Amino acid sequence: MAKVVWGFTCSIDGFIAGPGHDMSWMEAAEPLAPGTVERMAADVAVIIAGRDGYDAAAAQRDERDELTAEAYGGAWSGTEFILTHRPEELADDPSVIALDCHVTEAVRRAKEIAGERDVQIISADIARQALEHDLIDELQVFVAPVFLGDGIRIFDVPGGRRIDWELVEIDTDSPRSFGRVYRPKEKAQQ
Amino acid sequence: MAKVVWGFTCSIDGFIAGPGHDMSWMEAAEPLAPGTVERMAADVAVIIAGRDGYDAAAAQRDERDELTAEAYGGAWSGTEFILTHRPEELADDPSVIALDCHVTEAVRRAKEIAGERDVQIISADIARQALEHDLIDELQVFVAPVFLGDGIRIFDVPGGRRIDWELVEIDTDSPRSFGRVYRPKEKAQQ
Repeated sequence: MAKVVWGFTCSIDGFIAGPGHDMSWMEAAEPLAPGTVERMAADVAVIIAGRDGYDAAAAQRDERDELTAEAYGGAWSGTEFILTHRPEELADDPSVIALDCHVTEAVRRAKEIAGERDVQIISADIARQALEHDLIDELQVFVAPVFLGDGIRIFDVPGGRRIDWELVEIDTDSPRSFGRVYRPKEKAQQ
Repeated sequence: MAKVVWGFTCSIDGFIAGPGHDMSWMEAAEPLAPGTVERMAADVAVIIAGRDGYDAAAAQRDERDELTAEAYGGAWSGTEFILTHRPEELADDPSVIALDCHVTEAVRRAKEIAGERDVQIISADIARQALEHDLIDELQVFVAPVFLGDGIRIFDVPGGRRIDWELVEIDTDSPRSFGRVYRPKEKAQQ
């Protein structure tokens, strides 16, 4: 059955975007080993993104920075859901499906489409909501060798919320990017 | 000459302490390979800590949680500076030297004592000040497989400040703890 995966590249200090949604630091990340991106992209049937990420990607496309703007550097094709309260604003973009629904419903629909392949969440805000409902099966974490000091945090829950993960895989083909895969500890031990 | 090292264990989401300076999640970190802690401790001549960390460690000692309360789980001995604006409050503790001075002066004095060995900073707040003055030669980063959601961030600079690092070493003896060493990119390329 489809896994729900949350994949991100973060700074050492735990940000997935700098102030103002800045993503320019991503270029500091070590490139993955040849074939890794393509292999990861092939696993993913449906991407669930947020409106902020969609807008940031669109802005980057305008700056012709295609590499970071497109999922998997263009190596991916599939169905992309954008969760937004204003789906009508995206009606002119045939490349995405704009949805105004609860994260639980979005994940259910994504899994239906995905079949045996994965659903990939690429928004920290949506991932946080999905975690609240125990919907994440796997983390894919890549670390770029930078400090950002401020910006959008990986997991932002005022007052704190501890979640224990279990490290299940290290991408030894790309050791400098620290590709690593975690599963929720409770699920991993089932 | 003495290196100035900032070593920390953080959560995946970039915190070095949870809300209320909670450190109980540290037990989720994978143990380092046998001998690693002792080897790291032997490199360090002087530790520079902050007052908050000193107080938190004292509180933990009271709870008899010796392992996380003591530097390197008790494997270390040397000179410990505590930077504080109220040094007189620590006058009764012969195990530390309380200093009320600028971080630059504290690092200078620490390096004088350290000789060929390292100065280790174990406070994120002091490390941030040291980074402002370009005083950090090396990061030692360990990642525990937890999310905390809130707490004390690794590097907290409102408005952001990008610092580029260069990965110089991966602790392949303890791959699951992700011990990794970075140097400031500019210094590494000199």
